[in-house]
Amino acid sequence: MLPTIEWRDDRVIMIDQRKLPGEEVYVECRDFEDVAEAIEKMVIRGAPAIGVAAAFGVALGFLRVERSKDSRAEFSRILTRLRRTRPTARNLFWALERMTAAHQENQGLPLDELKKRLIAEALDIEQEDVEINRQIGQFGAELIKDGDSILTHCNAGGLATAAYGTALGVIRAAFEQGKKIRVFADETRPFLQGARLTAWELEKLGIPYFVISDSMAGWLMRKAEIDLAIVGADRITPNGDTANKIGTYSVAVLAKENHISFYVAAPLSTFDFSLETGDQIPIEERPPEEVKEINGKLITPAGARVRNPAFDVTPAGYITAIITEKGVIRPPYEKTLADLRK
Amino acid sequence: MLPTIEWRDDRVIMIDQRKLPGEEVYVECRDFEDVAEAIEKMVIRGAPAIGVAAAFGVALGFLRVERSKDSRAEFSRILTRLRRTRPTARNLFWALERMTAAHQENQGLPLDELKKRLIAEALDIEQEDVEINRQIGQFGAELIKDGDSILTHCNAGGLATAAYGTALGVIRAAFEQGKKIRVFADETRPFLQGARLTAWELEKLGIPYFVISDSMAGWLMRKAEIDLAIVGADRITPNGDTANKIGTYSVAVLAKENHISFYVAAPLSTFDFSLETGDQIPIEERPPEEVKEINGKLITPAGARVRNPAFDVTPAGYITAIITEKGVIRPPYEKTLADLRK
Repeated sequence: MLPTIEWRDDRVIMIDQRKLPGEEVYVECRDFEDVAEAIEKMVIRGAPAIGVAAAFGVALGFLRVERSKDSRAEFSRILTRLRRTRPTARNLFWALERMTAAHQENQGLPLDELKKRLIAEALDIEQEDVEINRQIGQFGAELIKDGDSILTHCNAGGLATAAYGTALGVIRAAFEQGKKIRVFADETRPFLQGARLTAWELEKLGIPYFVISDSMAGWLMRKAEIDLAIVGADRITPNGDTANKIGTYSVAVLAKENHISFYVAAPLSTFDFSLETGDQIPIEERPPEEVKEINGKLITPAGARVRNPAFDVTPAGYITAIITEKGVIRPPYEKTLADLRK
Repeated sequence: MLPTIEWRDDRVIMIDQRKLPGEEVYVECRDFEDVAEAIEKMVIRGAPAIGVAAAFGVALGFLRVERSKDSRAEFSRILTRLRRTRPTARNLFWALERMTAAHQENQGLPLDELKKRLIAEALDIEQEDVEINRQIGQFGAELIKDGDSILTHCNAGGLATAAYGTALGVIRAAFEQGKKIRVFADETRPFLQGARLTAWELEKLGIPYFVISDSMAGWLMRKAEIDLAIVGADRITPNGDTANKIGTYSVAVLAKENHISFYVAAPLSTFDFSLETGDQIPIEERPPEEVKEINGKLITPAGARVRNPAFDVTPAGYITAIITEKGVIRPPYEKTLADLRK
């Protein structure tokens, strides 16, 4: 298991994903504000991991609530802060909703008991995520053949979840089944999650891989060096439209053009049943420095203007199948998703 | 004019494109070996600029040939060295062929006269390139409308040519005509020609621009923020297949998917009439460090394996038109190109 995030001694410990693979440094969060900032600054990232972090953040914040305060108002203040950390990942809001439900259902308990109950709920979310990822891995591995070369974009591995991974969990499960595979990891500019995090995980797991610049993926598909693509997701609407790391849409279009299967691997907590289509998903625009600087050094002229949308939306029509913990669904997603949830 | 390359006092001076935009440093080449290494190490890059550099390299090398040596054998030695610097750009071989023809046609001259003749030929190639770029700019500017947002990939500007630029020359000509345009410059990993060089040129020219990560281009097309795409070329086969910087193929596929015009701007010296289709174009694979390191610092695990194809081939079917110094040609390129050369 990779040490993405942990509840330890009434604190939340996270590996600092900004420093990988060069340094393995851990960040200690003592209150919910520390957790909120860690999410905003991408100490931790990846939709399921953000969900776990948010749940831990609520539990941690509520643990610090003093007896003299209005605990409901304090709970609301914690929620409000965590809710505005990052706008796109569905799992953040899903986890906050679950913590809110736990808080409401246990209002009758004494404050200390309620605090314990919220910690237990957050730990449940973490543990469930590990199990869910293993199930996604099992279902997804059936789609991977011995000898396949698999493209992935960004990091949907153990670092993006409580452990094991979604897209990388599928790759990992296929590898654990003894299938001879190799991975092409898009470096994933601007934040380099592929070059830094996916490569670091694949290295630790002993799975053969190549890192490539994002712009090489299309050409390698055309040269028949890639057999399939698999990515994670930040938010999926019921029609199958999928928000994921910027560049995912391009991978999907290039896969379609080259008759290559394009899979999304995500837990059901990534689905947003309050929306209809991907057009309604808010897309975060992140700070310009992420594009203008690498390792703190300018790569553009100082005065350059940049765009930095952190996600894009891949229309369902480009997605061969979505791999969830309940099974693999194929278009039309409205129907197959509804069947799956019955 | 941008100071890409210059013949001065029997030396060749180039701006070091590896150091831009942070530092404006000039490299002085005293013999053809210096020029060959400058091409290999990408002190100078861009197909037309490589052609000019190669011509200057031949003239410089031949200028240093001593009276006691076999001047034909020396010429051949210079050619052989320069020919193996970079395999993909057609203009390199075109320029070497032209210098070879000048050498052969003037065999009757005394050695000192022959030396002068080769310098004159190289300077002609340089001057013609400037004029050709201006003509490409004029023809191409007609394809750009007032208010257009234009995507470009890599750098096909003054730095990629003797001066003015091909794809960026078209953008520049439209801007000089008073059209209100803005440019999206793909950063162009791994060498960052877009973030570093195209942005530097656009900044100097006062043309509004945004730098984006390569993986953002597709999404911005889908969001209707880009009206057309225009790129340079390293080698074009008579059927219109176009080798250009890695990532160009992806831009072309995404443009087609989003019903956006995709233009190639290149001089006729970029066409390779000895080949039939793009499948025959040799694609250079460059050193892994270009992908693994940025500014000399590792971004991947130390043991990571990478791929680094420097170019890809865009099939003619994705190319709306090719802009040459003789006019704009459209499919079927075999026919329109033949008509153009009549």
